[in-house]
Amino acid sequence: MITGGSGFIGRRLAGRLLQRTDVERLTLFDVHPYRGTPFGDERVTEVSGDISDVATVGRLIDAGTTSVFHLGAVVSAGAEADFDLGMRVNLDGTRNVLEACRKLPAPPRLVFGSSEAVYGGNLPAVIDDDTPLYPQTSYGTQKACGELLISDYSRKGFVDGRSLRFPTIIVRPEPNLAASTFTSTIVREPLLGRTAACPVNENSVMTLMSVNRVVDSILLAHELDGSAFGTHRSLLLPAVSASVRDMIEAVRRAGGNEAAQRIVMQPDPMIQRIVDTWPRAISAARAEKLGFQADDDIDGIVATFVAEISHSRTALR
Amino acid sequence: MITGGSGFIGRRLAGRLLQRTDVERLTLFDVHPYRGTPFGDERVTEVSGDISDVATVGRLIDAGTTSVFHLGAVVSAGAEADFDLGMRVNLDGTRNVLEACRKLPAPPRLVFGSSEAVYGGNLPAVIDDDTPLYPQTSYGTQKACGELLISDYSRKGFVDGRSLRFPTIIVRPEPNLAASTFTSTIVREPLLGRTAACPVNENSVMTLMSVNRVVDSILLAHELDGSAFGTHRSLLLPAVSASVRDMIEAVRRAGGNEAAQRIVMQPDPMIQRIVDTWPRAISAARAEKLGFQADDDIDGIVATFVAEISHSRTALR
Repeated sequence: MITGGSGFIGRRLAGRLLQRTDVERLTLFDVHPYRGTPFGDERVTEVSGDISDVATVGRLIDAGTTSVFHLGAVVSAGAEADFDLGMRVNLDGTRNVLEACRKLPAPPRLVFGSSEAVYGGNLPAVIDDDTPLYPQTSYGTQKACGELLISDYSRKGFVDGRSLRFPTIIVRPEPNLAASTFTSTIVREPLLGRTAACPVNENSVMTLMSVNRVVDSILLAHELDGSAFGTHRSLLLPAVSASVRDMIEAVRRAGGNEAAQRIVMQPDPMIQRIVDTWPRAISAARAEKLGFQADDDIDGIVATFVAEISHSRTALR
Repeated sequence: MITGGSGFIGRRLAGRLLQRTDVERLTLFDVHPYRGTPFGDERVTEVSGDISDVATVGRLIDAGTTSVFHLGAVVSAGAEADFDLGMRVNLDGTRNVLEACRKLPAPPRLVFGSSEAVYGGNLPAVIDDDTPLYPQTSYGTQKACGELLISDYSRKGFVDGRSLRFPTIIVRPEPNLAASTFTSTIVREPLLGRTAACPVNENSVMTLMSVNRVVDSILLAHELDGSAFGTHRSLLLPAVSASVRDMIEAVRRAGGNEAAQRIVMQPDPMIQRIVDTWPRAISAARAEKLGFQADDDIDGIVATFVAEISHSRTALR
């Protein structure tokens, strides 16, 4: 079962899981019905509904469920704009998933998609495994609470959980409500031949991961024995640090000057202020010891996207 | 309004608040009706009820409420034994308090009684302001979530909150369900002329605070401007570190050899295991800068208790 099963990551994770012959069935749950091409795989059930509804979640996580990938969430700017919606989906929804897991005859494996948004305040130059969590958004607060609950439910043996703190994941196929959405926009649009507005200055630094590498990480987290996580189930993932300048240069290398020139600086002080509070560098020793890896570099991340669009253009022909 | 208003700390806090002429009314809310002597002060309303009931909490935190002291909780061993009760009281109850505060015309000041139980895992020799939270009990998990929510509700302007991480508070007048209850027992019982079983060895170290000093801390936290807390509203309090040996010697100094000999070592491996995971020393620079102080030493803490029992004996004559 995947929550957020219509989403950017959920969809790609589903595709990878369906390549495995030992996956007997896969439930894709999301508030939004998926609008793209369905998988056409009879193992898949697509369900749309509200994760904050106890009965819905209890029905979907049934006695045959062995693994839950809990990725569904109201993202940062969304949870900031509608506090109650964020609490309901991100906190109550996670509790519903945990309670449904707890009712199963054997504790299922649960991979929870958390976020670097759990960090905030006066951040050190490099975030590491022992950086304390002072989230400065409701989204980050709700993710941090989710992590704590997943560790505790795991300790109690109610679920076999693990939480991954994702960096910004690119390249999204379309904008979303996250303040980080521009990190996808400034790669996607120019390489598709369209102009893109960049709301932050060239020195702004983000921590990034390609969606393929995120799916690798989710699958690895799922495979690892719970005991590998030790006394708590939250894991900071490694990431590539890149400035906006680095990203523009990577677009230039992938798509030429023409592509790079489609990125137009259009400062947005609100977005700049948010981005300035983000982690700029990650040292994820614990995750690396467990086998998690960042992408090689920003060019590798851009290449993943180029391969994906070439593939989908070929498929459309 | 005080939640946990029948409790050890709540009762003493109420007594101190009632000394102030600017306190117009005081609601003492608790699941247990208070069984001792009432305050006999017409400003006081005592209410017993369930904090996990939204309507009850909403009724008590009404438009005239300017300050909430949220101390009520199911303690460590209690929340470990009954997981659902802990979640309901410690997490849902805190959310009910926050939501009731949010509905008021102006955000009230909220002091939340958190705990060093938010720490755990591989602890450093000295806990400080940047030690990350890896709680190893459901109680600690629920307190950590409460702290995160209080910071976020404060950031949003829904409440003007502050969370204090209490060390072990002694001397309780009677045992409770906390694993730490022996720290009170081995002072209280011998000084009252009764024998006391000590379940952990003499080298076990605890971090302690007298109840008077805790009440001082709560009142100071209430007085401080919210901006003094910076980007997050949680504060580690300073504490006195003392071994069981130190405590026995303090009892000897206060009550003589006769008293010290009433402490009988009666090892309990389960309690020993829990105590071995606790913080052994605190460096609370942030709190000290704001004016919070630990007791002078273990003798000072014992003296507080001796003064209290002498006073109540005098009162009874």
